[in-house]
Amino acid sequence: MRGAVIHAPGDVRFETLDDPKIVHPTDAVIRTVATCVCGSDLWPYRGLEPIGDPHPMGHEYVGVVEEVGSEVTSVTPGQFVVGSFATSDNTCANCRGGWQSSCLHREFMSTCQADYVRIPNAQGTLVATDGHPDGEFVPGLLAVSDVMGTGWYAALAAEVKPGSTAVVVGDGAVGLCGVIAAKELGAERIIAMSRHASRQKLALEFGATDIVTERGDEGVAQVKDLTAGLGADSVLECVGTPEAMRQALHTARPGGNVGFVGVPHEVAVDGQELFFSHVGLRGGPAPVRRYLPELIDLVLSGRIDPGKVFDLTLPLEQVAEGYQAMDERRAIKTLLKP
Amino acid sequence: MRGAVIHAPGDVRFETLDDPKIVHPTDAVIRTVATCVCGSDLWPYRGLEPIGDPHPMGHEYVGVVEEVGSEVTSVTPGQFVVGSFATSDNTCANCRGGWQSSCLHREFMSTCQADYVRIPNAQGTLVATDGHPDGEFVPGLLAVSDVMGTGWYAALAAEVKPGSTAVVVGDGAVGLCGVIAAKELGAERIIAMSRHASRQKLALEFGATDIVTERGDEGVAQVKDLTAGLGADSVLECVGTPEAMRQALHTARPGGNVGFVGVPHEVAVDGQELFFSHVGLRGGPAPVRRYLPELIDLVLSGRIDPGKVFDLTLPLEQVAEGYQAMDERRAIKTLLKP
Repeated sequence: MRGAVIHAPGDVRFETLDDPKIVHPTDAVIRTVATCVCGSDLWPYRGLEPIGDPHPMGHEYVGVVEEVGSEVTSVTPGQFVVGSFATSDNTCANCRGGWQSSCLHREFMSTCQADYVRIPNAQGTLVATDGHPDGEFVPGLLAVSDVMGTGWYAALAAEVKPGSTAVVVGDGAVGLCGVIAAKELGAERIIAMSRHASRQKLALEFGATDIVTERGDEGVAQVKDLTAGLGADSVLECVGTPEAMRQALHTARPGGNVGFVGVPHEVAVDGQELFFSHVGLRGGPAPVRRYLPELIDLVLSGRIDPGKVFDLTLPLEQVAEGYQAMDERRAIKTLLKP
Repeated sequence: MRGAVIHAPGDVRFETLDDPKIVHPTDAVIRTVATCVCGSDLWPYRGLEPIGDPHPMGHEYVGVVEEVGSEVTSVTPGQFVVGSFATSDNTCANCRGGWQSSCLHREFMSTCQADYVRIPNAQGTLVATDGHPDGEFVPGLLAVSDVMGTGWYAALAAEVKPGSTAVVVGDGAVGLCGVIAAKELGAERIIAMSRHASRQKLALEFGATDIVTERGDEGVAQVKDLTAGLGADSVLECVGTPEAMRQALHTARPGGNVGFVGVPHEVAVDGQELFFSHVGLRGGPAPVRRYLPELIDLVLSGRIDPGKVFDLTLPLEQVAEGYQAMDERRAIKTLLKP
C-alpha cells in the first residue's frame, strides 16, 4: 500500500509501505475511505516538534473494515466505521468513566494518511454506521473522528450551557467545530476570535454571533465589552500556545470555565493568577469515543455539518500539497481521498 | 481600641489603635466576639511575603454589630453576625453568580485581630444568627468565616459527590475543614495526607477514612494503591506550595478534579502535563458568603463542629504568642478572645 511519511520539516512524501496486518487479536485493519491533515500535524511539519526517524503520519480516518482479529466481535469486514484518534478498549475503569482517551490500553493513531490502517483496540474504538453512508456525509464523519469530537469536548469541558456565552479562541478546524458544539449545547452568544475572512464566514455559518478580530489585551477588552465587562461563561481554547491560553483565561468571567484542547506547547499557567481568576480549567485529548454515537447521529441526520471545515480535497497521493496548503493557510483543512 | 500589628517577620505586637468608624454608608462596625490567626497570616510572619509598613492583621471574625451606615438594613446593632474574609455587596453580577469573593466591590478584610472592626459592604457580607449563640458554638461560627467556608469551597471545586473518593492535601485548619466538607458532601472514602499525630486524629474524627503520611512520589503511590491504581475523583489542595499542587494533580484520576484553596506561592502548572492528566482545576478565594446560611445552620444544629480546629485559645492581647504557637506547629489554629 501507499501512505504519507514525514522525513523532515516541510518534507512529507507519499511512499510505498508494508500492508498493515493483524498483530494482536484485538486489532482490525481498515481500508480508508477518507483521511486528512490535522493542525497538530503541522507542529512537526513546521519543525516545532522533533521528528526523529522518518515515520508515517495521520490520525483521522473513516473506512471499511477489511479484517478483524479473533477477539473483535463488534465490527465485521465490510462495515463502514468511524473511530477516534485515540484507541480505547472501552472497558477499563477510565473508559467506563467516560475518559476513553485516557484508556489504560490507549494507543494514539499515527499511520492514517494511507490506503490501509491497523486499528488497535478495535472492539472499543470503532463504531459502525448503519449501512454505508452517502458520500456527502463522509467529510462530516471524518471530522467526527477528531476535530468535531475535540470541539465537542472543548465545549463540554468549558461547561457550555443553554443560554450561556461562549468564546472560541482559535479559528482552525477544531475552533470552528467548537462553534458548532457551543451552538448545539445551547450557547446563546458565541464569540469567535478570528482574523481570517474565510474562517469568519464559516464560524458565522456554524452559529457564531460575534467575531472578534483583535488579539491580546485588545481582544480581551473586546470580549469584555460584549459581556457587560464580566467575561464569558465558557471559553474554548483551541490552539495550544501561551498567547491563546492567556487569551482564554483572561476572557472567562469569575466562575467561568476554560476547556483547552490545543496540545499545549510551552504553556505554563501561573497558579496565583488562576487562583484569583476563579476560572475552572480542564483540557486534554478529547474522549471522542464517548461522543461517537451521538455525533454520528448528528451528522447523518443532517443536523450538523462539520465536514465543511474541509475546504480542500485532494487525492491521497497529493498529501504533500495538502500539508503545504494548510501550512500556508491556503486551506483550513485538507481531506485526502485514497 | 487595641489590636494586632505586624512590624516585621516574627514581630506581631498588640497595640492601641484608632477606633474604627463608619466611613461609607455601606459600612458596619462590629465588636469582635472572637477572631483568630490564619495559616495565610504565617506567610508574612515567616518573611515569605513582603510586609511593608507596619499594619493591622486578621480577616476572620464573629461579633456583635455596634453601628451601621445609613444604607445597611439587613443587620442592626446588637445582632450577632458572621461574615466572610472577602466582603461583597451580594448584588453585582459576580455575586449573583455565586462568586461573592470576586464581587465587583470586594474588599478583603485585614484588621480583624482587634476589639472592633469596620466591615465594608456590610449589607451583603454579614449574616445575623437568630439570637446570640451559646458560647460553645462561637468557635464553629468563627471557623465558618474562613477555614470552614474555604474547605467547603475546596470540596465543591473538586466536585466531591456522594460515593466518591476524596484526597485532602494539607492538614492545616483548612484541610481539616475540607475533610468535614468532603464527608458532608457524601464522599465514601476520604484520604487525608498528614504526618502530624494531632492532626491525623482530628482528620479521622472529622471523617477521614485513610491517612497517608508519605509525600511526593511516595505519597502519590500510596494514594494510587488505595484507589485501584487510578487516583482519586476529587483532590482538595489546601496548602499553596508547588509541592502540594504537584501532589494534588498527580493523585487525581483522569477526569477527576482538583480544588485549590491555598493561596499559591510560586506555583506554575505545566500546560502539557495538565492536558494529558485530564484533571479539572479550579481554585480561588472561597465565596464564603454563598455558603454562610447553610454552614451556620450546620454548626448551630450540631451537625458539624469545625470549631475543633482551634486547639489553642488565648486572650486577644496574647496574639503574638498565638502566631508563634502556629508558626512552631504547637497549635493547629489559635482562637483569640477580646
